[in-house]
Amino acid sequence: MAKSIRIQLEPQDHPKQWYNLNADLPSPLLPPLGPDGSPVSPDMLAPIFPMNLIEQEVSDKRWIDIPEEIRDILATYRPSPLHRAVALEEYLGTPARIYYKNESVSPAGSHKPNTAVAQAWYNKQAGVKRLATETGAGQWGSALAFACAQVGLECKVFMVRISYDQKPFRKIMMQTWGADCTASPSTETQTGRDVLERFPDTPGSLGIAISEAVETAVGDLTGSTKYSLGSVLNHVMMHQTIIGLETKKQLEKAGEGKPDVIIGCAGGGSNFAGLAFPFVYDKIHGADIDIIPVEPASCPTMTKGPFSYDLGDFTGMTPLLPMHTLGHTFMPPPIHAGGLRYHGIAPLISQAIVEGLISPRAIHQLECYSAAVTFARTEGIIIAPETSHAAAAAVQEALKAKEEGKEKVIVFNLSGHGLMDMKGYEAYFSGALEDHALPQDELEANLEAISGYPKPEQRRSGRW
Amino acid sequence: MAKSIRIQLEPQDHPKQWYNLNADLPSPLLPPLGPDGSPVSPDMLAPIFPMNLIEQEVSDKRWIDIPEEIRDILATYRPSPLHRAVALEEYLGTPARIYYKNESVSPAGSHKPNTAVAQAWYNKQAGVKRLATETGAGQWGSALAFACAQVGLECKVFMVRISYDQKPFRKIMMQTWGADCTASPSTETQTGRDVLERFPDTPGSLGIAISEAVETAVGDLTGSTKYSLGSVLNHVMMHQTIIGLETKKQLEKAGEGKPDVIIGCAGGGSNFAGLAFPFVYDKIHGADIDIIPVEPASCPTMTKGPFSYDLGDFTGMTPLLPMHTLGHTFMPPPIHAGGLRYHGIAPLISQAIVEGLISPRAIHQLECYSAAVTFARTEGIIIAPETSHAAAAAVQEALKAKEEGKEKVIVFNLSGHGLMDMKGYEAYFSGALEDHALPQDELEANLEAISGYPKPEQRRSGRW
Repeated sequence: MAKSIRIQLEPQDHPKQWYNLNADLPSPLLPPLGPDGSPVSPDMLAPIFPMNLIEQEVSDKRWIDIPEEIRDILATYRPSPLHRAVALEEYLGTPARIYYKNESVSPAGSHKPNTAVAQAWYNKQAGVKRLATETGAGQWGSALAFACAQVGLECKVFMVRISYDQKPFRKIMMQTWGADCTASPSTETQTGRDVLERFPDTPGSLGIAISEAVETAVGDLTGSTKYSLGSVLNHVMMHQTIIGLETKKQLEKAGEGKPDVIIGCAGGGSNFAGLAFPFVYDKIHGADIDIIPVEPASCPTMTKGPFSYDLGDFTGMTPLLPMHTLGHTFMPPPIHAGGLRYHGIAPLISQAIVEGLISPRAIHQLECYSAAVTFARTEGIIIAPETSHAAAAAVQEALKAKEEGKEKVIVFNLSGHGLMDMKGYEAYFSGALEDHALPQDELEANLEAISGYPKPEQRRSGRW
Repeated sequence: MAKSIRIQLEPQDHPKQWYNLNADLPSPLLPPLGPDGSPVSPDMLAPIFPMNLIEQEVSDKRWIDIPEEIRDILATYRPSPLHRAVALEEYLGTPARIYYKNESVSPAGSHKPNTAVAQAWYNKQAGVKRLATETGAGQWGSALAFACAQVGLECKVFMVRISYDQKPFRKIMMQTWGADCTASPSTETQTGRDVLERFPDTPGSLGIAISEAVETAVGDLTGSTKYSLGSVLNHVMMHQTIIGLETKKQLEKAGEGKPDVIIGCAGGGSNFAGLAFPFVYDKIHGADIDIIPVEPASCPTMTKGPFSYDLGDFTGMTPLLPMHTLGHTFMPPPIHAGGLRYHGIAPLISQAIVEGLISPRAIHQLECYSAAVTFARTEGIIIAPETSHAAAAAVQEALKAKEEGKEKVIVFNLSGHGLMDMKGYEAYFSGALEDHALPQDELEANLEAISGYPKPEQRRSGRW
């Protein structure tokens, strides 16, 4: 039997500043572009976001202070524990030491509240009364509902119809925290009504839900409703860096030097960025670390998608963003990791890939679930379908260390528990789980649709 | 906005010994009786439990060492945090300081692994290969599945058919941890086959599931299968006392003196006992503390049931236990707190009631859910339906302190999160949730059925 090792920090050890990778990227981050191809200026975002968050979005300051009130709310569950996976190491017979940062301890069960609380607080400071957002599988909507209850804001969530029907308990979670959760498309917006008229039986999509949430914010002419996004944007990545900053302190407390491998799953990219960016800083300054964002093989944005300008959504409500993308018309296969089915990936992560700072990897879902079951039976925690991608990569790295006979330190982000998402495990045990590959012709057809968009290399012209 | 206060302990602060209330009760605990009315001797339990746990069951030693290996496994999530409910206090406008011990942080989501890990470990030490148990709503089956995976035992769970069908994800949780979960009644035991022949469409019952699990243990003539129970028994109560022992250290760390009110919900009684018994010790030694086990008004075992000998199960596989009981034929109404629907309550708790050391309280489920929603919106954690009873009593006590203008310290046990049990919240929001009262004639009819059983006052003849 293995000895559990859990490294805690005291609430007062919570990081006092967020880390902003934008300050340290060797090449500057490219600006988002409007439909006419010219850069979007910060004030053009003002109908959607409050100015204090827009300032963070465009900031190139390395460190940004975390207001004490935000740290106070996060102290409900932060600093989160770092565990050493001794039982998993023994099972694998690896000389590697595997650590995982346990973000599943938040009341919403994932890392998402780290930015939800910050965004809710800044909106409250700016006089906003209500936040509107979209949610697919429900992790983000739950987190924002939790955060709004903590801060004292109303919360409106548009949940993709098919998830709304298949996962009624996610809706009840949001309702318990006081949020108003509506199936999307809804009759509450023009977008929703138009879609319903044309496609009354549509299962909905994240693109439609984003459009409804943005319309709700922009349509509130009093300015008291704003929009909130749970991933992709620069300020969201930054809010998550407390994960990696805490991990550094905890590794030090555990007597470890620099880690050799850093791993996180990546859909929009926020949990990966949260753990990894403080280590990317070290890598920029000479440290020898393999930093691996992991995606589903069926949605290979980082490993097969080109670096291009593309829309953030399906319907064109967002600016063009510079990112690795499968094309905004990409229809993801029905894999269980709902949070990893986005067609793009955060611009900051895309830029780090281009710079050679991080090395993306794609893994099929059967291998991921196999790793998740091994993890549950050794370490005891049932992880989210998304997180299983990080666990699978950690297993790969630990077995590689075994082959090489090397004593490596591997750290991965346990971004959430799977207790609200057991259907994938059910499919795994019943033998119904399948791997999906993205056909080359489908990829090419999607990329054809964005071939007319500006190319990042044409836009190398200074920071935003 | 309120400042979160979370009091942690380091893994090495985990208690080194369990506290056994049996050593300190003013009157000795009465023995269980066989069908003939004579006390059950420890060796008669040997086909069901390993001798090392039977020794704990009958022990009157005050402190029993916790093996280091058990503490090592529990260190995955223990010591659990103690939180001060500052936001709830502000919401209620109470001068009371409310604390809650957060047992929802275990991988199974409740306090149940505290004893599951201990029981699995002692069985492993005794050479047992497999544990059999029953589960109703699924909390206990999940916890034992988790523990068996950690220790390296096989695990067989008989899950009441109606819950098995209604809560498929509980079954998948157990399967993920490697347990074999079967709907009860099953065709795998004589009991199950008999019941199915007579009632092919039965929804099952905890009584039938217990019988199947015990038969599975007793029927393994190699002795390699034993039975495990998640509540009621003395050694189970004792394994949970780490909750209260940690709480004492945490209150001290928070600068609090002795608390004024200690609260836990009670079905079989283990989470209440875990928090309360170390404070019952203080009360026996003169401390002025109100200690309140809370039950559903629809299942008022402690507040309306007499102290009597009664069967532990429906079908008579267990000895007669001295306890407050509604009669073993009691059919609980369909309240959502599945863990609080037992007809009896632990003998140690019953004896503490008789001694006047603790003061039971019954609360209706609408008031409990109202408190749970208030708790979620202030403190952020969505609690289990069972736990909502403790939260409701804490709110009652905090409002009483407000009325009296008294600065009290109130501590309750947050025994589990509600993420796997959102149906009750759904019913609450939809207006479908109802209070149930136990009709007096039904109570009397059930008690009539046990009127021939020995009375505890006839058995005051020394410790077991």
